[in-house]
Amino acid sequence: MSFLNIPSDSQFPIQNLPYGVFSTTNNDKKRIGVAIGEDILDLSIIKHLFNGPILSKHQDVFTHETLNAFMGLGKEAWTEAREFLTKILGTTDGTLRDNAELRSKAFVKQSEATMHLPASIGDYTDFYSSENHASNVGIMFRGKENALMPNWKWIPVGYHGRSSSVVISGTPIKRPCGQLKADNEEEPKYGASKLLDFELETAFFVGGPPTQLGETVDIKNASDRIFGVVLMNDWSARDIQKWEYVPLGPFLGKSFGTTISPWIVTIDALKPFVMENPKQEPKVLDYLKDDEPFTFDVNLEVLIKPSNAQEASIVCKSNLKYLYWTMKQQLVHHTINGCNIRPGDLMGSGTISGTDESSYGSMLELSWKGTKTVAVGNETRKFIADNDEVIFRGVCEKNGVKIGFGECRGKILPADVKY
Amino acid sequence: MSFLNIPSDSQFPIQNLPYGVFSTTNNDKKRIGVAIGEDILDLSIIKHLFNGPILSKHQDVFTHETLNAFMGLGKEAWTEAREFLTKILGTTDGTLRDNAELRSKAFVKQSEATMHLPASIGDYTDFYSSENHASNVGIMFRGKENALMPNWKWIPVGYHGRSSSVVISGTPIKRPCGQLKADNEEEPKYGASKLLDFELETAFFVGGPPTQLGETVDIKNASDRIFGVVLMNDWSARDIQKWEYVPLGPFLGKSFGTTISPWIVTIDALKPFVMENPKQEPKVLDYLKDDEPFTFDVNLEVLIKPSNAQEASIVCKSNLKYLYWTMKQQLVHHTINGCNIRPGDLMGSGTISGTDESSYGSMLELSWKGTKTVAVGNETRKFIADNDEVIFRGVCEKNGVKIGFGECRGKILPADVKY
Repeated sequence: MSFLNIPSDSQFPIQNLPYGVFSTTNNDKKRIGVAIGEDILDLSIIKHLFNGPILSKHQDVFTHETLNAFMGLGKEAWTEAREFLTKILGTTDGTLRDNAELRSKAFVKQSEATMHLPASIGDYTDFYSSENHASNVGIMFRGKENALMPNWKWIPVGYHGRSSSVVISGTPIKRPCGQLKADNEEEPKYGASKLLDFELETAFFVGGPPTQLGETVDIKNASDRIFGVVLMNDWSARDIQKWEYVPLGPFLGKSFGTTISPWIVTIDALKPFVMENPKQEPKVLDYLKDDEPFTFDVNLEVLIKPSNAQEASIVCKSNLKYLYWTMKQQLVHHTINGCNIRPGDLMGSGTISGTDESSYGSMLELSWKGTKTVAVGNETRKFIADNDEVIFRGVCEKNGVKIGFGECRGKILPADVKY
Repeated sequence: MSFLNIPSDSQFPIQNLPYGVFSTTNNDKKRIGVAIGEDILDLSIIKHLFNGPILSKHQDVFTHETLNAFMGLGKEAWTEAREFLTKILGTTDGTLRDNAELRSKAFVKQSEATMHLPASIGDYTDFYSSENHASNVGIMFRGKENALMPNWKWIPVGYHGRSSSVVISGTPIKRPCGQLKADNEEEPKYGASKLLDFELETAFFVGGPPTQLGETVDIKNASDRIFGVVLMNDWSARDIQKWEYVPLGPFLGKSFGTTISPWIVTIDALKPFVMENPKQEPKVLDYLKDDEPFTFDVNLEVLIKPSNAQEASIVCKSNLKYLYWTMKQQLVHHTINGCNIRPGDLMGSGTISGTDESSYGSMLELSWKGTKTVAVGNETRKFIADNDEVIFRGVCEKNGVKIGFGECRGKILPADVKY
């Protein structure tokens, strides 16, 4: 419980305490904050109160414009911060509760804040870890017999993405132009993508000190390196992607924009919602073996709001638990070759689809490659139309406690066709 | 001509003036310098002398620890800097020549300097722009009939690489471990890569102010966005790559290390060595059309020095002119979907192979997939052995003027097999 008045349906009760970076109209400096109820606690204002053994020596991390330095301090520092914040936001400690002047400086209404990217993202990697999604795509493009590639159950397959075009929720995305080639034509043409899609994903931020080139992260220590999780829309232009991606993988079909939600929900906050990991058969190689449950029960949904509609309509209900590979396995695999990681690196899950059709995490799957329509309120879609807004939500609920990820939103603007 | 005593075979005459970042034993602060003969001119010491219309307002860029800010100033600032440096290093201006005290502070011997990454690399992209290389790989893996993919002559094919593991020349690279699957086996095994390779590439650094998401770079303005060029070794573990790369492209087979040479040779320095672009047939789409010659005659060579050998031996002689796609076309294509670019982004050429066997830019091609041996002094190789040092060199020569790229070196250390 908190001394603050937190609405009962809030996604940000005291059990959540996600981190983000915000600014306000009055003060355009970017500051680190924690979401609590309808407020943000500005950590730059209360940094001098972090007097634990680790953070007392690193109070300056809360004056930065990104979370990278705090992420870099590592797991023990995060736990210390969480315990301290739980204390001062609780009902028994008077530090904030009884200090009206400090409270008036330290709290900002979320409705009055502008959110920014929470970290400077050194490298962004995207995995492909939902078996249902990989199978669906495989069936559509290669047939049922060859749905999953031979490497898929051995390797948490992933690829390097573009970090410059990762943007914060609310940033409009222009429909991309590029090379498109129709199946019945010999040559490609320049034009606006006709098959614009979302991909329902989550992504985690890497924490802990940077590793050295040549260093690996052992599965036993991998959870210490995962700071927290956001929702992510890996916008995809299916027609651009199809023509370009063999043999070097997705490139311009993805790099026109990737949207993340502003609040990073920590692993400590997700712990109550942990579940057994999915059974992996064939057995994975030793370096990927892990007994610790690291699968999380997070309800995910995708809504589309057409420009003329009053309300957004749900088009997909999925769950983070549908991942075959855990975040720990993704991270460990990423470093098995000695690739160095840095705090603030972002690693995406890949599209999260369940077994049921209503849980498919992309229009490609929901419309089965455009062969059927998807109801969106009174309208229908096969892919995303101009001025549609796509909204992701994520919520965990158990034993009366609910914590949420907030929203990951993005509106598609019409293309700027130049040539 | 310079007032300095520059050896006649120097790669760094006054016509070159490449930029880099260095430190010294006496002063471990990273500083921006220009290579001239056997010296480095420390621009942080002479920053107050940049009194041109642009740089007089931005002298602070020369106090930074990377070149990003200077790169971000754009083409006119680079030209102004070059003209000024050419003047004060020449024979007629007395600013440096006649000021012994300033000279003693401003010049550092290259032999006494440690070089660092010249920029903070926001994103690293690697293209695949040598027709001979793409054809060779295609023939080896798919047969002569399907050597080039259908998209190759339409798209400057590329992929996002890992920026964290781009390192400066001289950094040792540990042989990577990972998943390897033999053709005659059902399942992959963990182990050290047996097929470690170099890839002979160059790469350019992006300059000019960052573009906005959704903005494109027109081919007419693309050369204003190319700051300069380095040599790059895109180390590749062929066995890891082969098992992982379908369908999302190269990942851990590449991200264990990418080595670049320390001195960025500017486009202005390369201009005297420009040639007609290769004929592109079929005709490229309008957005890629360009009449300006932007192909450069740069002799490239690869040497291998086995650990027991006294000397390094040449295994490949190639040339930058063997690229089918120009750097301008690569950059323009990269932004055609609205992907934003930032000063300091690094874009690689792809392996540069000529038509002649001796010009193949990788061991994969030189040993034709390990079917024949390559002479390295008194030894032979199919791929790279532990403790081999691989050295790239690049030199332009015309009308008695020679400018060089220096070296891109890296030694392969034995793997650390853990599982």
